Amino acid sequence: MDRSWTEGLAQRVGGGRVVLDPDIIAAHARDQAPLAEAGTALALVRARSVEDVVHTLRYAHERRIPVVPRAAGTGLSGGANAVDGGIVLSVAAMDQILEIDPAARLAVVEPGVINATLAARAEQVGLYYAPDPSSRDISTIGGNIATNAGGACCFKYGVTGDHVLALRAITADGSCIETGCRAPKNVAGLDLTRLLVGSEGTLAVIVEATVRLLRQPPPASTLVAFFETMEQAAAAILGMEQAADLSLIEVMDRTTVAAVESLTSMGLDTGSTMVLVQSDAPRSVDMIEACERVCAEASAKDVFATSDPHEGAMMLAARRAALPALEKLGTPLLDDVAVPRPALPAMFARCEAAAARNDVVIGTFGHAGDGNLHPTILFDRHDPRSEAAARRAFVEIVEDALALGGTVTGEHGVGTLKRPFLERMVGTTEAALMRRIKAAFDPHGILNPTKVL
Amino acid sequence: MDRSWTEGLAQRVGGGRVVLDPDIIAAHARDQAPLAEAGTALALVRARSVEDVVHTLRYAHERRIPVVPRAAGTGLSGGANAVDGGIVLSVAAMDQILEIDPAARLAVVEPGVINATLAARAEQVGLYYAPDPSSRDISTIGGNIATNAGGACCFKYGVTGDHVLALRAITADGSCIETGCRAPKNVAGLDLTRLLVGSEGTLAVIVEATVRLLRQPPPASTLVAFFETMEQAAAAILGMEQAADLSLIEVMDRTTVAAVESLTSMGLDTGSTMVLVQSDAPRSVDMIEACERVCAEASAKDVFATSDPHEGAMMLAARRAALPALEKLGTPLLDDVAVPRPALPAMFARCEAAAARNDVVIGTFGHAGDGNLHPTILFDRHDPRSEAAARRAFVEIVEDALALGGTVTGEHGVGTLKRPFLERMVGTTEAALMRRIKAAFDPHGILNPTKVL
Repeated sequence: MDRSWTEGLAQRVGGGRVVLDPDIIAAHARDQAPLAEAGTALALVRARSVEDVVHTLRYAHERRIPVVPRAAGTGLSGGANAVDGGIVLSVAAMDQILEIDPAARLAVVEPGVINATLAARAEQVGLYYAPDPSSRDISTIGGNIATNAGGACCFKYGVTGDHVLALRAITADGSCIETGCRAPKNVAGLDLTRLLVGSEGTLAVIVEATVRLLRQPPPASTLVAFFETMEQAAAAILGMEQAADLSLIEVMDRTTVAAVESLTSMGLDTGSTMVLVQSDAPRSVDMIEACERVCAEASAKDVFATSDPHEGAMMLAARRAALPALEKLGTPLLDDVAVPRPALPAMFARCEAAAARNDVVIGTFGHAGDGNLHPTILFDRHDPRSEAAARRAFVEIVEDALALGGTVTGEHGVGTLKRPFLERMVGTTEAALMRRIKAAFDPHGILNPTKVL
Repeated sequence: MDRSWTEGLAQRVGGGRVVLDPDIIAAHARDQAPLAEAGTALALVRARSVEDVVHTLRYAHERRIPVVPRAAGTGLSGGANAVDGGIVLSVAAMDQILEIDPAARLAVVEPGVINATLAARAEQVGLYYAPDPSSRDISTIGGNIATNAGGACCFKYGVTGDHVLALRAITADGSCIETGCRAPKNVAGLDLTRLLVGSEGTLAVIVEATVRLLRQPPPASTLVAFFETMEQAAAAILGMEQAADLSLIEVMDRTTVAAVESLTSMGLDTGSTMVLVQSDAPRSVDMIEACERVCAEASAKDVFATSDPHEGAMMLAARRAALPALEKLGTPLLDDVAVPRPALPAMFARCEAAAARNDVVIGTFGHAGDGNLHPTILFDRHDPRSEAAARRAFVEIVEDALALGGTVTGEHGVGTLKRPFLERMVGTTEAALMRRIKAAFDPHGILNPTKVL
């Protein structure tokens, strides 16, 4: 690999921002997706300012050097993985909340601001930053926007992109663009904001975001129900979704429940599928009562309901422990599919069939209200046969989601893991259009090459 | 103009879909924007099927003939106005609701379906199509999507684009693309759906849309308040917006109130600014009581509140009569600006200053909750000095909105009327990017040329 440019980059960017130590670069070479390909970068830029990003991109653009933007690296699709011979451009240190405007109910932030940090600052002034990916304590607003991250509350409040008013971003040649505006409504020209949202660093590097804040909703009431069969759980999910104004509907299958119980000793019913719902509507207690009736009709084994927000938060913590708990059982290959809600029971059944067919353990959990499931295949990374079986099951589950009218990725993004499925998902003509749009932003293809498309 | 191709088009599309009668074509040459330029088309295609659209575009693409797509022609920016020597491609007759899926809560429609028709069909199965442009009784879903139409309820429920799951569209060369999917969440690839939304027919012709339906909200409670001054009204708007969970916040200045009273004899207080709010939250009566307190603090002259949905609908009808009522006073040049909510009082004041400075009458009404105002300049179309004054005021108001951090168009789109302001609004680099994206869809620039960019 041609290393001749690395010292020049260090000079151009300056300020000690450019790291050439291979060990430090290697520590920034991957996000959290196992089995996703990753290359060897030759430089890491730790940007501290918009100028650092501009200088890096101009330099790379002139020399056709690949640049992989990243922030916290909590992605689950390999989207932030390094590529050979390139630059890893981290915006994690651009982590200032620049403004919170309570009257306009918006915040202006740098891309490296941690989601939970913004949420906490908003809460201090009685406001609510709604997008809540499970990674919110460690993931950044910039990364959330680049992947259009989901979460539990997007069932009610929408995904990350629904909360972005305006962006400042640097395109491949170092040009600064500003999209959107601070007004709540704006239809001036093509929607570049929504085009950048979810583009996974392939179009531009986000250096500033203006996001919506909402009024703080009332404290949530919570219900947790346990079901003998997945079919009963699915019926309850669809029934509650119709019966009540809920802010989230989460599910964990019995494999996941057992793993969480083993990790947390919370007293969960390990032989059951668990469904958790919350309502933050003004009459949340009524809503939860309606859900109790639905669960009884669906033959729930056990139902717990509470209007105490702290008890509710503890129950939600059990759901949030799903992935760490499953990780104790093996290396997790986390899938991310979404189907139309009525197809949920079929999708659950297909996950179970994929587990049986490939003789692997799959723990399935996710955002059932949005039809968004994370079937998590557990394998032994030291056993090639186990890994091969996991990969087979992964592909089958993605194909099942497609067959049910769903998508190959509901909220984690394409990255490298889902790239083999993208063209089948979106179509050949559509993928060609996406490539032409990519070329309009990045004619030399330096921005996060080999990702998404 | 070269007319040699028109008979060939009639043969290619067939079925009597192609109209060459100049009078009929002329009747389809304009939308509802006064003072917007319009050219003379040579053919009108009344498409009845996707194939008609494909044949028209292929033919036009081969011969570089401009094509202006349109549906009901209710736009207010000249976006559907004909261009010289081109084809007007109407999808108004593609008006079938293809599917309503109550379980998945979505509808699949052809582009010519009237908004209110879809809303009524959804209501029959207990569902709610939220986007409610004032034109909803006569405008189409296709046109609503092409302009990303707003409305009153988008204060709570979001604009048209927030309710679009998937699109089928025909690009300039006649290729069919399908964007999005039926799952509630989807992050597979660049967001072509949101790129087509609001693109005003410049990228592709929408031939089918899959839209979200919501559960029917509870009946709304309504409050109407009258204020001596615009400042008091603005203070009440901002206060109510913070104090209550509202579904819409509408405003009419005293000029508009007087015009509506003159048209309807409803007994409105003609010397006042009127503010109307509704809440469809579960505790809407409490919400409206909170608003009554805010209005009292803001020195409201009169306040009427009701939990009767029919009374509320009558009050909302008064607001919806704003434009027809102002039309009785002169030719209306309707503006459409949006500013961050805290800038509303300043925007109101600037509209009044523009009226005084140019010696024109301006009636200002709009969706105050979204900072989206329609200052409507009334002029005498037979008096060139009056028209010139109206045009000056129009420009000043747009510049005022920009100066206040707002947008040159909140919900009506750019069309031809706002085209002179687009590049200032979005920036030179950003406009160049939009042109490159346009070229990626439409390399010969046949789709709605001279519009937007």
